[in-house]
Formats: sequence, C-alpha cells, structure tokens
Amino acid sequence: MLEALLYPKTVAVIGASRTPGKVGHEILANLLHAGFKGDLVPVNPAGEEVLGLATYPDLKIYKGTVDLSVIAVPNKFVKAAIESSIAAQAKAIIVISAGYKEVGPEGAEREKEIASVCSLAGVRMLGPNCLGLINTEHSLNASFASQMPSPGGISVVSQSGALCTAILDWASGRGVGLAKLLSIGNKADLNETDFLTVLAADNQTKIIACYLESITHGDEFLKAAEAAASKKPVVVLKVGTSVAGVKAASSHTGSLAGADIAYGAAFRRAGVIRAENFESLFDSAMAFSMQPIPLGNRIAIITNAGGPGIMAADAAENSGLRIEPLPPELANSLKAKLPPAASVGNPIDVLGDADPDRYGLALEVAQAAESVDAVVVILTPQAMTDAVGTARAIAKHMKGDKPVLATFMGGHDVMDARRELTALSIPDYPSPDRAVAALKAMCDYSAWRRRPPRVVTRFPVNRRRVERVIARHERSGRPEVGEVEAKEILAAYDFYVPPGRLAATADEAVSIAEHIGYPIAMKISSPDILHKSDFGGVKLNLSNAEQVRDAFDLMMLRISKRAPDAQIDGVYVEQMAKKGREIIIGMTRDPQFGPMLMFGLGGIFVEVMKDVTFHLAPITADEAMQMLLGTRSYALLRGARGEAAVDLTSIASGLQRISQLVTDFPQIAELDINPFMVGAVGTPPVVADARMILSGVKKRDE
Amino acid sequence: MLEALLYPKTVAVIGASRTPGKVGHEILANLLHAGFKGDLVPVNPAGEEVLGLATYPDLKIYKGTVDLSVIAVPNKFVKAAIESSIAAQAKAIIVISAGYKEVGPEGAEREKEIASVCSLAGVRMLGPNCLGLINTEHSLNASFASQMPSPGGISVVSQSGALCTAILDWASGRGVGLAKLLSIGNKADLNETDFLTVLAADNQTKIIACYLESITHGDEFLKAAEAAASKKPVVVLKVGTSVAGVKAASSHTGSLAGADIAYGAAFRRAGVIRAENFESLFDSAMAFSMQPIPLGNRIAIITNAGGPGIMAADAAENSGLRIEPLPPELANSLKAKLPPAASVGNPIDVLGDADPDRYGLALEVAQAAESVDAVVVILTPQAMTDAVGTARAIAKHMKGDKPVLATFMGGHDVMDARRELTALSIPDYPSPDRAVAALKAMCDYSAWRRRPPRVVTRFPVNRRRVERVIARHERSGRPEVGEVEAKEILAAYDFYVPPGRLAATADEAVSIAEHIGYPIAMKISSPDILHKSDFGGVKLNLSNAEQVRDAFDLMMLRISKRAPDAQIDGVYVEQMAKKGREIIIGMTRDPQFGPMLMFGLGGIFVEVMKDVTFHLAPITADEAMQMLLGTRSYALLRGARGEAAVDLTSIASGLQRISQLVTDFPQIAELDINPFMVGAVGTPPVVADARMILSGVKKRDE
Repeated sequence: MLEALLYPKTVAVIGASRTPGKVGHEILANLLHAGFKGDLVPVNPAGEEVLGLATYPDLKIYKGTVDLSVIAVPNKFVKAAIESSIAAQAKAIIVISAGYKEVGPEGAEREKEIASVCSLAGVRMLGPNCLGLINTEHSLNASFASQMPSPGGISVVSQSGALCTAILDWASGRGVGLAKLLSIGNKADLNETDFLTVLAADNQTKIIACYLESITHGDEFLKAAEAAASKKPVVVLKVGTSVAGVKAASSHTGSLAGADIAYGAAFRRAGVIRAENFESLFDSAMAFSMQPIPLGNRIAIITNAGGPGIMAADAAENSGLRIEPLPPELANSLKAKLPPAASVGNPIDVLGDADPDRYGLALEVAQAAESVDAVVVILTPQAMTDAVGTARAIAKHMKGDKPVLATFMGGHDVMDARRELTALSIPDYPSPDRAVAALKAMCDYSAWRRRPPRVVTRFPVNRRRVERVIARHERSGRPEVGEVEAKEILAAYDFYVPPGRLAATADEAVSIAEHIGYPIAMKISSPDILHKSDFGGVKLNLSNAEQVRDAFDLMMLRISKRAPDAQIDGVYVEQMAKKGREIIIGMTRDPQFGPMLMFGLGGIFVEVMKDVTFHLAPITADEAMQMLLGTRSYALLRGARGEAAVDLTSIASGLQRISQLVTDFPQIAELDINPFMVGAVGTPPVVADARMILSGVKKRDE
Repeated sequence: MLEALLYPKTVAVIGASRTPGKVGHEILANLLHAGFKGDLVPVNPAGEEVLGLATYPDLKIYKGTVDLSVIAVPNKFVKAAIESSIAAQAKAIIVISAGYKEVGPEGAEREKEIASVCSLAGVRMLGPNCLGLINTEHSLNASFASQMPSPGGISVVSQSGALCTAILDWASGRGVGLAKLLSIGNKADLNETDFLTVLAADNQTKIIACYLESITHGDEFLKAAEAAASKKPVVVLKVGTSVAGVKAASSHTGSLAGADIAYGAAFRRAGVIRAENFESLFDSAMAFSMQPIPLGNRIAIITNAGGPGIMAADAAENSGLRIEPLPPELANSLKAKLPPAASVGNPIDVLGDADPDRYGLALEVAQAAESVDAVVVILTPQAMTDAVGTARAIAKHMKGDKPVLATFMGGHDVMDARRELTALSIPDYPSPDRAVAALKAMCDYSAWRRRPPRVVTRFPVNRRRVERVIARHERSGRPEVGEVEAKEILAAYDFYVPPGRLAATADEAVSIAEHIGYPIAMKISSPDILHKSDFGGVKLNLSNAEQVRDAFDLMMLRISKRAPDAQIDGVYVEQMAKKGREIIIGMTRDPQFGPMLMFGLGGIFVEVMKDVTFHLAPITADEAMQMLLGTRSYALLRGARGEAAVDLTSIASGLQRISQLVTDFPQIAELDINPFMVGAVGTPPVVADARMILSGVKKRDE
C-alpha cells in the first residue's frame, strides 16, 4: 500500500533548481545525500545540470516512467506538473508548493482542482503545502528538511511542516532514530487516517507519533486508529483545544459536550494515547520505541539521591501508578549486598556513592519482584558517580521483560551517559516526573490492550414503533420531539415510562387521573414550549380530582397569557414518579465522531459541577459501567452518607439501550432523559422527563 | 547577616586531603580554582602540603583567626574540629560530613550535640550532611561540587546536595548564572527560613529558588517567606506531597486538610510561587531573573509556524492567561509591513520565511499594544530561518517594560541561538507550554504583589464568655465541646444561634418549647455522643407539646439502650432553623502553619465532591470572599438554576469571625460549624450545629 510513495524506484523532482536554498534544490540534494538507490529524474525548465545530474526541461522528454513525482514549483505551474507526472505514469505525487487552502477561498479552489486531477487518474497525492516525506528504510529523503535521521522505530505523521523540522532536529540531537516521517500539509488527498493504516502494517514502525490540528474524517480515523493501536502504540498530540469551544446546542448533553471532549472520547475508544504537549509526545514515543509494554502499573524507583526519588514517587502517586514495597525476601537479599545506610524500600536508595555495580544489583532485584511491573532508574551526578558506566550497567542487567526508564539529571556531567543510554535503547528523561509520565502512557496503553473484548449487547426492542413516531414528525415538520412522544420512543426501547395520557379538557384530565390513581403529575404538551416549568406548565404531586381540575385550568390560563401563539396538544396526565436519585442520560452527535453518550447525576451535579462523563456509542456493558465510575459523584450512587445504593446495573442498561436507539436511528440528533429516576436495586428506573431533537426534518413554515 | 559564612576573609578547611576525589581535597581545590581572594587555612593531621599550600596538623597551631571553617572529616572527629574552629574564633562553620540524623537515632543525637556546641558559642552552622555553599560574588566555592557557576541573579537553597550538583550542571550547560547556592543538608542550625531572610536582603539575588523536603518552623518560614516575596520572587519546589497523606482528625475540617493543602495555603499566603516539578522550578527562575514582572495576564504570541502558536494559545487558555487581539490601528500598521499571508491576529504568524527584521517588527507592535502584558516569541528552524539573528533582533527590539520569553524549538539547529538568547537575558524554553507556564508563574506573582493591603477586621466580641466555657472544660477534663457550649462560644463571637435551652425532663422540654414557640428541634446533649443522629438523638420540626414529649421519652429510651454508659446532660430544645443553603465553616490547626479555615457547601459537596477551600487564619474580608469564589459550587451560592442568591457577605463575615476566634483562643484545636444555614441577603445565617475540640485539656480518667 502506497508502495510508490514510500518505496519508489524512480523519483522525479519537478522544479529541481541550481540555486542552493531553493526548495527544489534542497529536495534533490537531500535525495542524493540520503543515499537513495533508485533513479532520480530532475526536471528544470532551463535544462541545466543540477548537483551533477542532467535535468530534463520537461518530464515529457524523459522516456521512462516514474513511481513518485515531487513537485516544488510556483503554484500556478503545479497542475501542469501533476499532469506531466501522470503522463509519466507516476502513482504518487508530493506537492510541496504552498498557496492553497491556507491562503483562502481561491487557494482552496486550486487545491480541489489538483486533488481531483490526481483522483481521476488514480494517483495518490501528499500535500500540498508540506515538507515532503522521509523513509529511512529506503534511504529516501523526499523533503526539504536538511537532516536525515538514522533508522529507528518511531514514525511521525505531522500536520505542521515546521514541527517536522523541529522533530528532525530534536531526533538528531538526541540520537534517536526514526522510521518514517510524513508531513501531511493540507491533506487534500492523503491524510492521517491513510498513514495510520500504512504505518500499522509497517514492520519498521514500532510506534506512531502524530501531531494533528484537525481530523479529516472522524469515523474513518476511529477505525484506522483502533486497528493501528491494536498492533502498536499510537500517540497523538491534538492541538487547538482552546479554540474549539462549545457548540451551540439545545439539549443539556449538547451544551456540555465540546469538541475537545469528543476528541478525548474518540481517543479513549480507539486506544490512542493522548499527549499533553509537544515534549510528552516524544517522551512517550521514546519509551514505546525502546522498551516493552508493562503488564501492570506498579513501579520501582532506584535512585542515588533521596530528593529525586521522592519526586518520582509524588509523580507516580499523582498519576495513579502504584509503588509497592519489595517482597521481604528480595529486600533482604538486596540489603545484604548494599551498604547499611542504603534503603531497600521503594524507592530503593543506592546512596550518593553508588557505583555501576550497585545500580546493577538493585535493578536485578527490582525486575525479579512480582510486585514490580516497571522500573525508573534515577542518577544524579555526584563526586563518585560513573554515569556512563551506570548506563552500561543498566543495559547489562536489563532483562527486557519489564520496561526500564532512566532519569539522568544535570547537564554536562551526564551528557555522554545520556547519549550512551539512547544508544543502548534505554529511554532517558531530564526529570523524574517526565519519566513517570512516559511510563503512565505505557501503562494506559497496556490497560487498553488488555481490555475485555468489546461485545455490544443488543436488546429486544420495538423499532417499528419508533419509526412511526419519527415518520409522524417528518411529515408534520417538527424536529423537536416533546415529552409525550419521546417517552413513546423510549418505551419502545424497553424503558419504564409511567402510565399517562394526553387530556384535552379538565374533565378528561380527571378521568385519566382517576384511572391511573393518585398522586398525579401534569405537564403541558406543546411543540412550541420547550421549558415547560418556565411557563407554569408543570404541576406535581396532585392528589385528588379538585387539584387536577384546578391545575388544568390554571395551566391553560397561564399559557394563554405567556405564550398566546403556542400550539397546545393538551395536558399530559401521568403517574407521579417515585422518589429516587435524579440521573441524566443524554446523547449528542459530534460532527466528527458521531453519537456521544453522556451520564451524570441530575441537577446541580450536571449544571454546576459539570460532573459528567461521555462515551462514544455503541457502548458495551463494561463501558457503560465505566461511565458511572468516571464521575466524582459516583460515591453517592454506591450509597455514601448512609443513603441506600441505587441500581447501578439499571443505569448501565439504560445507557446501553440509548446507545442502541441512537445507533438504530441516526435521525435522532440530540436526546436528554432528565431526570431518569433511579431507585434501589431491583426497582426499574423511571423516565420522568425526556426530549429529543431530530435532524433532517424540515421545519414547516408557520 | 551571616557575613562570616557568605563573605569570609579567612577560611579554614579541616580535613584538607592530598587525595583527589576525597571531599576534603575537592573543597580546597574548589576554593583555589574559584579564585577566592581571602586566606585559606588547610588543616590535615599529616601536615603535608596540599595543592601547593602548607597545611596545619591542627587548627590550634594556626596563630591567626578564621571567619569560616569548613569541616570534612569522619563524623567522630567533627566535634573536635568544631571546638578547634570556635577556638580560632570562627563565626560560621560548614559541616560537610555525613552520618547524622539521616542514619537514625544515634546520628540524631550526635547532630544535636554538635549543634549545641555551636549554639553555645554563638556560632552559626550550615549542615551537617551538606554539599557546602557557593557565593559567586565573593568568588567563594566552599563546596565539593566541581563546577563554579558564573555570576547571575538566581540564588538556590536546596535540601538535597545531589540536586545542587544537578542544578550546577544544568546552569553551566545552559550558560545561566547563579548568585548564591546553599546546600542546607540536615538543617541542624541554619535552615530555609534563615536564608530566605539573607537572600531577600542580598542585592545580587534577583530571585530565590528553593528545593525543600520539609519546613523546619512553619510560622517563621511564613513570615520570612512573605517578607522575602515582598521584595523579590520566591519559587519553591516542595516534594513529598504523596507521602504526606491525611492526618487522623475527628472534625470534618481536619479530615479534609492534608499536609499538602497546608503547604498550598501557606505558600499562597506568603506569595511563594509553588513549582510543579524540577524543570518548572528553573523555568520560572530563569524568567524571573531575566525579565521584568508583567502588570497583567494578557499575552501576545509571535510565531513563524501555526502549530506551535496554537500550542501556546492552548496552554495560555488552560492556565487562565488571556490572549486578546491587537488593537486595530496597531494590527493594520503591522499588516502593512508584513507579507499578505501573515496573520496579525494573536497569535501573530510572521510566516515560515520570517527573517530577524520581521520578528523585530512584530515584537515592537506587540509591546506597544495596551492589550498585551507579556510576549512569547516562538521560532521553529525552517529553510530560511536565521535563528541567531532572530535572537539578536529580539534583544534589540525588547523595550524592557514587558517580559519577553522565547521558545526556540528543535535541537542542533537552534543550539547557538539558544546560547545567544541566554547571553542576552532572554529566557528560552524548549516548548511553548513551558514558556507559558513560566509566564503564568510571573503573572501569579505579579497579582500577589498587586494585592490589596491585608487589613484584618476585628469584630467586637465577648471574649470573657468564651474564656469561661473553655475554663469549665479545662476543669472538668473534657476536650470535646458539644453543641450547646460550642454555640455559646459562637454566640459570644456574634454568630446568630437559635434560642434554646437544656431540658432535664419531658415537662421542662415542653415548657421551653412553648416559651420559644414551634416548630422546635431537639437534640441529645452528652459529652460521650458525638454523632447524635446515629443514636436517634436528633428530632426536627416538632410542632406541638405532644410531639415534644414523645420525642423526649423516645430519645431517652433509645440512648439508654444504645449507649447505656453515656453521661447525659439533657436534651437541647431549640428553635427550628429556617430552611437555607447548608454551608460548612471549619478550622483545623496544621502542625506547621497553624489555624487553617475551611469553607464548603454542606453535605455531598464536602463529603463526596471534596469541594472545599482552605486559607490560613487570620484572614481579611477579601480573602474570605476568595475562599467562596474558590469552590466549584460557588455558582449555587450566587444563585444558579433560578435559586435565590444567598448572603455571601454574611458567610465571609462568619469566616472572619471564626478566624478571630481561633486566633484569640489557640486552645481551640478543631472546629466545625455544620451546617451553617445561610439564607437570602439580609437574613442572618444560623448556626444549626457546631462542635469544637480543645487542645491541652487533660481527659479525666473515667
């Protein structure tokens, strides 16, 4: 896949210039210096020799065929260059040239045009407005970045060319190797999703690191990312969280779900590790590329100074990693071999005068302990410290089944040792908390890999009934599904809805109430009134016919004054829901990633504390329970403060059935069950109020 | 102050060894190489020449006097060395030797002994178990660290010698200068508090950076830190947050206040900037030492690549800094001078081919904008980038009234430029978020400096009444102050307490109730029953004599069964508190920093959400209001969800009066007002329940 792009035999460079510093010159020079073994076909209108190679004034003159064409000419000549590349049977094209989408609508037009020329010819395009690509395995530097990295296990996909340069500069400075580097630019054709798939299958790539400012197709990205993460770690730095903001939405759920929450939910689903910032992207990438994935989250710390050991322990505890003491027999055997002042707890303090052997001994013991899944080795340069020797001792005693990460603190004194560590495939960090953060990323990935198989339960439901309600709304041009019909839909998906009926008159209301039995709730039913209580349209706990009659008349009086133009369907008379814990279950569709389910405790917990969790639908029973566990207020459901525990399984099942509903009916754009009254274990939760918004329903002109 | 320690004219080195690598040798070598201009008096029992200097077999033989004596002999000889130093009229002594408190109780004894020898002689001691000290201004390297930093504005106080070495190594690697470096070791005499005071007065020191594992005297530290922070920034990395845990406490407030919360409150009070980790300690120190303090928190970002600009914007928004667009006239004037594709919003994108002049132009405009308090300049190495030239352009256009921080990303390509930046006093960070974090520390410090003057209101109160209640408890040996007497104390401090009295019989209860008027609350009063409701000891909302009588008899029946041995003072009959918002106000005494006030919304907000804030007493009106604002649930008090706003001022006043109470009466160890019922503006909040614990009250044997 994308063989012609990544492993071309013949590469054309259109715009190969004689002038050093010009992009077309640099690309050709990079191809030459990186030692590309295939054929190069430089094209230059002047037809002069460039860097010792004969050039063609036009690719048409070249008699052979090319696999890959790299285009670096002013954007007005790009289309012609693409056409001549296609004529030369290029199967992949890199458009380096800028002046497209990034400069405004005219550029976007040009971009569409060149993308469609390529797509019609079945040719894949990287760019435009990109740095190019590097494939160390193929000695291919088809970019204008001046540095060619050494081969290594990290592949990078970057939406910013400038950051590619910074990354290459960092990699060469640290002596870290790369597999492939792909600058995806404006992503007119090839994008992050394509490369996730390619790199997942690439044997040279051990870990995929992505810098993204946007994601082109949410659903495809999700699938490709999950498939890739099942094979190897995928770490993504997604920037632009601050500008994302919260989209306008009429449901509670919608108003709480910003784009950043959707990215979080999507990454969690797909097993993508989210990097906090630029440094952590590469901190994690180094750890993943050099060390095995831990099987748990218990770490041992080895240090030659107390302070940094405490720093590591603080960072571990704050991030949820665990630090357990060594088993007594191992601790004792280590104690016997270390000076008396050494500490064999955890952190293991090998003391300021520790030599490489002492580190080696401690590392052996830490790796042997069943209670240790990963080791952080810390060194501070002290009078007797042999930093390079310690680096070698770590490598020598590393067994390779548990990850070992190093923190050699300081500058000059540890520089050689840090280079040695990298060369020995031991990831090294300037401070303990960064090592711990990288380890935390590994533990999170490991937990995702070990997650139970995702089996989405399908509940027996009555789809036809839902279809009928939706069809009715489509016919009448009402995108808003009010309480009565939302409850009809939910009942079809096996939610318990209190008995109730619409009443057109006070008499009818009384007769319904008598039939259902008191106490009774009454609510106005009108497509024009969303916030019923604001209009005096809700009366609760009515206990006799007189109260029902009074409530009906009062409601009609108030509505006629406050909303004289509202169309009134009647008053909904229903059994009063039993007291219980108020829950909100909701759904909103993210434009990128589709249906996102929300869970939260009702009222202030949602509105003031914003204590809610989101998960992409469809969800499994386990994921539904994780949504409950993810809230701070979970303790209340479990029965804090002497209150009875509520039926957690019934909430989880409600979330799963909503998941099924919104997957079955993509027309449902937003949904709130608020409140969902949940009682003690064994009692069915009650849909006390609900509403939905349908998409694709044309609002009728009034 | 500490002149002899920091600016000695004559320095003795006891334990000066001929053997390179030995600590006593290294110290003498460092003193020589750093160019110390005073006299050196090396002492070595063998009396041989060391490093070209004649040595004395014993300091007694030396005829002159010394100012400072540095001791690096095995710990069994230290005491004698101290005594000979004192005999030679040393006014300060550094004990490098280890083997004291850090090795256990015997070492701690030895440490006490040498400290008392020094203190009796009026001599100040640094250490033991330390690295020594460096004073670049005096060309003094009285440490066994191999590197002598260049002079600069950062002074470092470190409780870890190993980290001193790492810091020196980092400083020399980055070309950053230091003023003084103090390794305080076991702090047997001189500690962080002493050096805060010394460095606050030191003209060479622009910023004080501390690494601390413990604080010796909380109250003295607070005073010294606040005094120092009023003159210059103090940044502290305090480690050991994870091991601190939560202390055992019987009050709500006590159980919520861990040691880490106390450090947070103390640092906030004193204006100390708390570093998150080792890197941020020096990231902030660099910014403070090189740049002026901003006058607000609005930042401008200048970048030659979009991605890193977004990263900086994300980080700024997440940390509460603001990014405002440039004023139109400035934006237009800049637009006219930049290429059309450049963006003059904020971030200002000067494009990938930006030369130093373009950066200079943008920087001029950003600094001129009224809407900008600080500038972050980002550079990624691209084809046309002149990184060193850009560093110089920044320095040239920097006006010096607003801080400018740089982020030159990458490795090799920007190395020279980064060195140039440091030399030009422009702090530089490897990634945008670290620059923003350093700037955030500057903004926080600036806000503290600009805080309103701290005026603690004193309310007119009845101290005598409180004294009487406390005296009664002291006499009767009851450390726990139950509801009735806690309310008496609070009433004396002008809290509104509902009318009520103790009843010994059911008849008496009825007569009190009739006198107060219904509805009535009844609560058991017993020093042995802390959680009244658990024993059936609380009845609320009683509305007639029959209910009061029933409640009294039932309470007595239950208590006699459930707690047959409890001493019963009677039943407290009181006016039922009006409905209102339940608040908790509390106090607990931190062993280090004294009384800490707590505020939170009652019930689940405290118990489940842990949504509380703490502040050290005494507090001002402004600080009390900050405590309210600091909770997430504050929105509820202000009147979210259509509920009425409560009387915020009355809560703040309650906090201030508690502050006064616990300052007046140090015997009060813990205090909870729970709930404090707060109503609408103008209605006095009601102490519905309260309890206190007294310290220093001997519990009588039963």
